[in-house]
Amino acid sequence: MGYDIVIHNGTIITVNTEFDIIANGLICIKDGKLQRIETADPHLPLPQAEDTIDADGGVIMPGLVNAHTHLPMTLFRGLADDLPLLEWLNDYIFPAESKHINPESTRLGSLLGCAEIILSGTTTCCDGYFYEDAVASAVYESGLRAILGQGVIDFPAPGVPDPSANIKNAVAFAEKWQHVSALIAPSIFCHSPYACSAETLRRAKSAAISQGLLFQIHAAETKAEWDQIQSEHQTSPVQYLDRIGVLDENTLLVHVIWVDDNDIEIIAKRNAKVAHNPESNMKLGSGIAPVPGFLAAGIAVGLGTDGCASNNNLDLFQEMDFAAKLHKVNALDPTVMDARTVLKMATIDGAKAIGLDKDTGSLETGKQADVIIIDTRQPHLVPMYNPISHIVYSACGSDVRDVVVAGKSILRNRKLLTIDIEEIMEKVSRFGASVFYSPSNSVNANTL
Amino acid sequence: MGYDIVIHNGTIITVNTEFDIIANGLICIKDGKLQRIETADPHLPLPQAEDTIDADGGVIMPGLVNAHTHLPMTLFRGLADDLPLLEWLNDYIFPAESKHINPESTRLGSLLGCAEIILSGTTTCCDGYFYEDAVASAVYESGLRAILGQGVIDFPAPGVPDPSANIKNAVAFAEKWQHVSALIAPSIFCHSPYACSAETLRRAKSAAISQGLLFQIHAAETKAEWDQIQSEHQTSPVQYLDRIGVLDENTLLVHVIWVDDNDIEIIAKRNAKVAHNPESNMKLGSGIAPVPGFLAAGIAVGLGTDGCASNNNLDLFQEMDFAAKLHKVNALDPTVMDARTVLKMATIDGAKAIGLDKDTGSLETGKQADVIIIDTRQPHLVPMYNPISHIVYSACGSDVRDVVVAGKSILRNRKLLTIDIEEIMEKVSRFGASVFYSPSNSVNANTL
Repeated sequence: MGYDIVIHNGTIITVNTEFDIIANGLICIKDGKLQRIETADPHLPLPQAEDTIDADGGVIMPGLVNAHTHLPMTLFRGLADDLPLLEWLNDYIFPAESKHINPESTRLGSLLGCAEIILSGTTTCCDGYFYEDAVASAVYESGLRAILGQGVIDFPAPGVPDPSANIKNAVAFAEKWQHVSALIAPSIFCHSPYACSAETLRRAKSAAISQGLLFQIHAAETKAEWDQIQSEHQTSPVQYLDRIGVLDENTLLVHVIWVDDNDIEIIAKRNAKVAHNPESNMKLGSGIAPVPGFLAAGIAVGLGTDGCASNNNLDLFQEMDFAAKLHKVNALDPTVMDARTVLKMATIDGAKAIGLDKDTGSLETGKQADVIIIDTRQPHLVPMYNPISHIVYSACGSDVRDVVVAGKSILRNRKLLTIDIEEIMEKVSRFGASVFYSPSNSVNANTL
Repeated sequence: MGYDIVIHNGTIITVNTEFDIIANGLICIKDGKLQRIETADPHLPLPQAEDTIDADGGVIMPGLVNAHTHLPMTLFRGLADDLPLLEWLNDYIFPAESKHINPESTRLGSLLGCAEIILSGTTTCCDGYFYEDAVASAVYESGLRAILGQGVIDFPAPGVPDPSANIKNAVAFAEKWQHVSALIAPSIFCHSPYACSAETLRRAKSAAISQGLLFQIHAAETKAEWDQIQSEHQTSPVQYLDRIGVLDENTLLVHVIWVDDNDIEIIAKRNAKVAHNPESNMKLGSGIAPVPGFLAAGIAVGLGTDGCASNNNLDLFQEMDFAAKLHKVNALDPTVMDARTVLKMATIDGAKAIGLDKDTGSLETGKQADVIIIDTRQPHLVPMYNPISHIVYSACGSDVRDVVVAGKSILRNRKLLTIDIEEIMEKVSRFGASVFYSPSNSVNANTL
């Protein structure tokens, strides 16, 4: 009896506990799972399989885990950059969302986002947005694995003009998607401690607990947020969230920049998780999260790209490069955040942060077959002394050749198998042309 | 009489003084120069040309200028990362250079470096190394434009075991390459104020002046260097260099991290130039150069990748992204280093920094035809509200489709026209397999 997929002729980076590297590796996949991961025996023929993938001497590794994103925001990629945070949000992003975001555009932007993350080697993402049902429908179609949360915020938002319906809507989304697909797990996504009341946060967390869902929240992102929480609650954002009882092992705190040692100790004690988004934090001038401190405290930290409006792409390879380098220069110490640590953050630790480490994030027998192949026959990846170094410091999303999720090929020789990308790009380009402010804002290319 | 090359059907980013963006642009090239840059008239046929390039709706822009690199160091890409600077240099890079660097390997590594920079849209680079004659021969073959400096250092170095011959060798290199090609200008490259004596620096600068050459030097890169110069000369590295008379408008200071306001004022007063290398500075934990301060003082700042051993690639698109984001987070201000400023740094300001702004760095009639075309029909570049934003924040080197230098195509549809890249990659891979330390150093993939 044969396997579904056999992958051979590549160097396997397992990201297992021993961080085993297997030269001339062989992977056998059956029923969506990894059945064998080993050195190929040159004296034996390849095991029989429906589909055999020759990695051509490249790197075979776990698919990447994007621990925080907003897929539909591909729609506003590069709409406005280099602006103060509040001007960016209030004058560009919020009005653009209010005018142009509906279920159809959300689904379109999400399909583009799915295509982009597949093409850059991500197999699992953790997303939060309004109209999350439309995001889920796109993700389902793409074949990606995902944790998806309907947004909860105490302001009128796209699709939920009446904030009092937010939690009801989020719960309805979760109930609907709880059992649709083994690849999709719903979640509850509260916007932030400054945009949700204590009552909203408590009710949302309680709903998440009762359904066994991940609770996501942006927290301690900016100095302004810290000041506001301090002024309203006389404590830090993290300690405020702890005080109202929403920190536990199923809480994912996103950004977590404005924290002190007490905050870190509390996050660690509650076993809450962190999603680190260095490119977004840098581009918005938010600050530098104390990631080495989180790791020293034993906190699981995943890596996220955030949405496209603040990055401006969804490439986790570039995000790894930023994460490794940012903390080195911040500490004036090149030994901080070494390549292994960063690669774990983009794979197994990211999976841990969103509660999926039993399923994905490393290549180990019995786990889900979420596998990517990197084409290393390229000038910027030659010579190869250390494959981990290449993945973190030299490679780019465009070096990803093949992507398998749960034993199903969704990218083959850089061809997307689940998404008609030409059609999606054409539709999104037309959408972009319809988004127009004023010539002075330089929004459209033809107004520049 | 026809043109040599006509490029049409793309959005032109000129990077001229007005930063004109030309939708549906047309560029006509003759005798290596830009003859026409304008909006295409839809009622007229395309001008006649030997070669017509359809940009397919993409972005047409000046080729990038890499203001600081060491091309042959592609040979040691990823050999050792995440180590303290002195351990990295003394235990890995210097021994590897001493054992494995010779004219043949230098030429090989340089050809790989040339291929890598062409494939990521660079048309001009400023390089310094030992065996620079071998670098020059590779660059000449590649068709790139370059400023090339033979290294001067007061220690035994590859090819120059006796330091007292260093300046003589550097001058001989400059004399040899002064008139070989219109695309190559020699330079003198002194390693640093700590690795060259005052006497060496004075003699080298004097040689550069007498031949009208750019004088390059790493300066104020690390706190350790600052401490050493302070201890030996009771002043800062920049003020020391000024005191011995080597700062003028033809001096390119590389890195320039450990400087204060007085140092910045002196650099500005002498009209010396700066090459900023954010990825290398971050990866080595050297520190953050005060680039916004340089710009405020009117100093010309170019962008460089540094060598591959400390980056670990030569992609200036990624370097732009790092430059834009690093200074925003450092200032906690998203308006710092906006996309235009950074794009100028990678083009016209880089050209200014190395003395080539009359020839290259912008698309203006009469200048050399150094042009690249970006393929924007890709998921991570859709939609396009602002092409400048895409170039700095969303694009990657692999999005470059075509490269023209001095009116000659050297990359077409991502195919290199001057370098047999398959042969080079195979040879460099074999070279890499010969570089071996001890299993504990995890140097070769098969020892991991």
